[in-house]
Amino acid sequence: MKIIVEDTYEEVSRTVASLTLSAFYQDRRVNVDLTDGSSPKGAYEIIAAILQKYPERVKNVHFYQHDELDSSDQFVYHLLKNQIHEPFGISKENIHPMDFSKQQEYLEQIEAAGGLDYMLLGIGADAHFCANFPDAAKLDQEIYDYDPKQYSWYDDYRRNFGMEEIPRIATFGFPAVLKAKQVVVVVNGKGKAQAVKDMFTKEISPKYPATILRTHPNLILVMDKEAASLL
Amino acid sequence: MKIIVEDTYEEVSRTVASLTLSAFYQDRRVNVDLTDGSSPKGAYEIIAAILQKYPERVKNVHFYQHDELDSSDQFVYHLLKNQIHEPFGISKENIHPMDFSKQQEYLEQIEAAGGLDYMLLGIGADAHFCANFPDAAKLDQEIYDYDPKQYSWYDDYRRNFGMEEIPRIATFGFPAVLKAKQVVVVVNGKGKAQAVKDMFTKEISPKYPATILRTHPNLILVMDKEAASLL
Amino acid sequence: MKIIVEDTYEEVSRTVASLTLSAFYQDRRVNVDLTDGSSPKGAYEIIAAILQKYPERVKNVHFYQHDELDSSDQFVYHLLKNQIHEPFGISKENIHPMDFSKQQEYLEQIEAAGGLDYMLLGIGADAHFCANFPDAAKLDQEIYDYDPKQYSWYDDYRRNFGMEEIPRIATFGFPAVLKAKQVVVVVNGKGKAQAVKDMFTKEISPKYPATILRTHPNLILVMDKEAASLL
Amino acid sequence: MKIIVEDTYEEVSRTVASLTLSAFYQDRRVNVDLTDGSSPKGAYEIIAAILQKYPERVKNVHFYQHDELDSSDQFVYHLLKNQIHEPFGISKENIHPMDFSKQQEYLEQIEAAGGLDYMLLGIGADAHFCANFPDAAKLDQEIYDYDPKQYSWYDDYRRNFGMEEIPRIATFGFPAVLKAKQVVVVVNGKGKAQAVKDMFTKEISPKYPATILRTHPNLILVMDKEAASLL
Repeated sequence: MKIIVEDTYEEVSRTVASLTLSAFYQDRRVNVDLTDGSSPKGAYEIIAAILQKYPERVKNVHFYQHDELDSSDQFVYHLLKNQIHEPFGISKENIHPMDFSKQQEYLEQIEAAGGLDYMLLGIGADAHFCANFPDAAKLDQEIYDYDPKQYSWYDDYRRNFGMEEIPRIATFGFPAVLKAKQVVVVVNGKGKAQAVKDMFTKEISPKYPATILRTHPNLILVMDKEAASLL
Repeated sequence: MKIIVEDTYEEVSRTVASLTLSAFYQDRRVNVDLTDGSSPKGAYEIIAAILQKYPERVKNVHFYQHDELDSSDQFVYHLLKNQIHEPFGISKENIHPMDFSKQQEYLEQIEAAGGLDYMLLGIGADAHFCANFPDAAKLDQEIYDYDPKQYSWYDDYRRNFGMEEIPRIATFGFPAVLKAKQVVVVVNGKGKAQAVKDMFTKEISPKYPATILRTHPNLILVMDKEAASLL
Repeated sequence: MKIIVEDTYEEVSRTVASLTLSAFYQDRRVNVDLTDGSSPKGAYEIIAAILQKYPERVKNVHFYQHDELDSSDQFVYHLLKNQIHEPFGISKENIHPMDFSKQQEYLEQIEAAGGLDYMLLGIGADAHFCANFPDAAKLDQEIYDYDPKQYSWYDDYRRNFGMEEIPRIATFGFPAVLKAKQVVVVVNGKGKAQAVKDMFTKEISPKYPATILRTHPNLILVMDKEAASLL
Repeated sequence: MKIIVEDTYEEVSRTVASLTLSAFYQDRRVNVDLTDGSSPKGAYEIIAAILQKYPERVKNVHFYQHDELDSSDQFVYHLLKNQIHEPFGISKENIHPMDFSKQQEYLEQIEAAGGLDYMLLGIGADAHFCANFPDAAKLDQEIYDYDPKQYSWYDDYRRNFGMEEIPRIATFGFPAVLKAKQVVVVVNGKGKAQAVKDMFTKEISPKYPATILRTHPNLILVMDKEAASLL
């Protein structure tokens, strides 16, 4: 793991924006999977400002997603649309939503497009990544789905997402992260410091899903001083 | 250029079959472009014998082509079908014929499938590769087409192909060869010895198209002693 | 995982020889780590026969090793010397033995040489790979060493190796396998059938080290029908 | 070629700095060749400001050079030292000067270090790249040297460099550029507009060396509006 600790969240955002734009600027189709959430927010604002001025630069970039809920309203897709696709000015042909009912087909579709070139992920305060949540995680599956209701974190997440009920969740597992040619993980804030420490010190198991990321051979972790404070 | 000179054509065929099967055996979609012609004939027979026994091994392999004629009967496609697709037992979904009238779309289709992973090419006695023929070659074009009638080699080729008339020819140029992740060139026989010598000694120009292959950073040239005899 | 099941051990050997020679035939330095043992024996005999005839073909290939014992006589190095380096005719400058007392330096040396391009591994009847043995395995370490005496398998291994005592063992862990650009695992015989089944069905843990290989994004497993018989 | 045209030189510099830093931020050894000159000046200032604050981030980055003069004072090395190595705070072990008298060894040294991961080049007003100058260029050589005195541009260059006499020049040719995993070319200003036009419109030949860059399969050209004004 390449660890980049920045003094401030603004620096984190600038570095993540640089890495992400550099992944976009290729003379070939580029397939990316960018997470929604608060950690990459600053980076997305920097990127959006540039792409609004030069929209033709991402004509070669195709957007995928690593999780989705089993609901008719494409919950995750809409988060991504609001935070990424629309601010970046991505055209419809370049956006590839995941259909919960066709998970294997989605993987095959990505494979047939040459695989993911770039993933930008976050880590939760409970050490989850993608939607590999504690205990529910199947780290050796490329993609899988499960019912979240039986897990201890269910109620908290339901409230966080502001939902009555969370339906089944489909998510990429660790092999899908390994398959991506480049992976960047962005983390910030005191609230993530324990998760970062757990990732580096707990035994590899579905209890602390991010522990498996320790085995990744070329992952770049960008964080601020606060997230790194317990290392 | 990695140069592998074998004592016999049988050894050439075994080595080319090994390289080609090794390119097929991946846990992901593999896009290949294999040339028709006499040089790879022996390799294709070895491969066909294995794939007839284990047809499931190439479910992940997709077949493209680097040239085609402007005729309704898909001349090159049928050569490939007879020499490669049918003996290898390739299913229709994995074969991607070039439509002469949609050359740019064909390139985009390859790009959208992740690019070519493996190309197996030959060299003509006039030092052409793909359908980049002497003087007609546009070495810096990914794909282009031209009318062959004006060239000195036209009548010979017409007779070779057994055709009344050769229509316009579409072909990949050098950048398409550079984009392939691995390129193998197979050459055999005394009749190619001068072309091999020209490739290494003439100035880079469309007169001896294969001269441009000297600039390729990782090309494997497999030939027998006879083809190498003027080096 | 790409799974290739062959009817006979002879076919296994031919396929593994093809994959290995294809990895060697590049126009650039190639760094490999080939395991000793009985499974790749047939493949090494095929390769040796070719390289004895054409020794110049592996001038670009450099040989590393993934484990070694803490003993003055370089136990593993001598196994490799007898089974691989000498039959293949590898010159001294291209052989890079691991010094048990300089494990981190060995990793840095590999890194500074561009990393491993090709690993050929086996799996033990107890589902170990490299020297990641049951319970002793630290799957998230690139390299580590341990004292084998405390483990239940110690006495069996001591007898197998024909040693009075096995000193500390240094070995690559899973991240080193992930870093290799291509990984082939060769397995044969009824005696490995249960290990193969365990690899695919047990939970990922140091108890069955090969389980972690399930998360590898592009590993080729070549085995005979007997090794695959419990799948 | 991926073409990125920026409104201002400041934007050019920011984009080139992003691409370059992103190439540095990997969890493995990274080998780079960054050109000296006026075009990348702005980018280097941005990078230097970051690296002076976080010097540990480039411990994994090794610096090479693509040309040198046959003189005892290592002319090009000192340009790079002043413009890059010292401002970036690169330690001596990570700097690999070219010895004019050992050109092949230099290539082998780069090869043995895993090859170049990133090249940042410029283009001259006469369409040269690296030290492939008009007519003198040997585009198919990985490395070569020549006496500049016979060429029409000699006196101008002598004056530009402020030298009494320019000795023999050693330089990478096009295959070395092709071998680099990523190549960025930075160009700015009205004075380069004709060279940029020539690169895209003249026949491929040593007269306009940059014409050969048209065949590169994944080169990123970053320039300002003025350099792009004749396209």
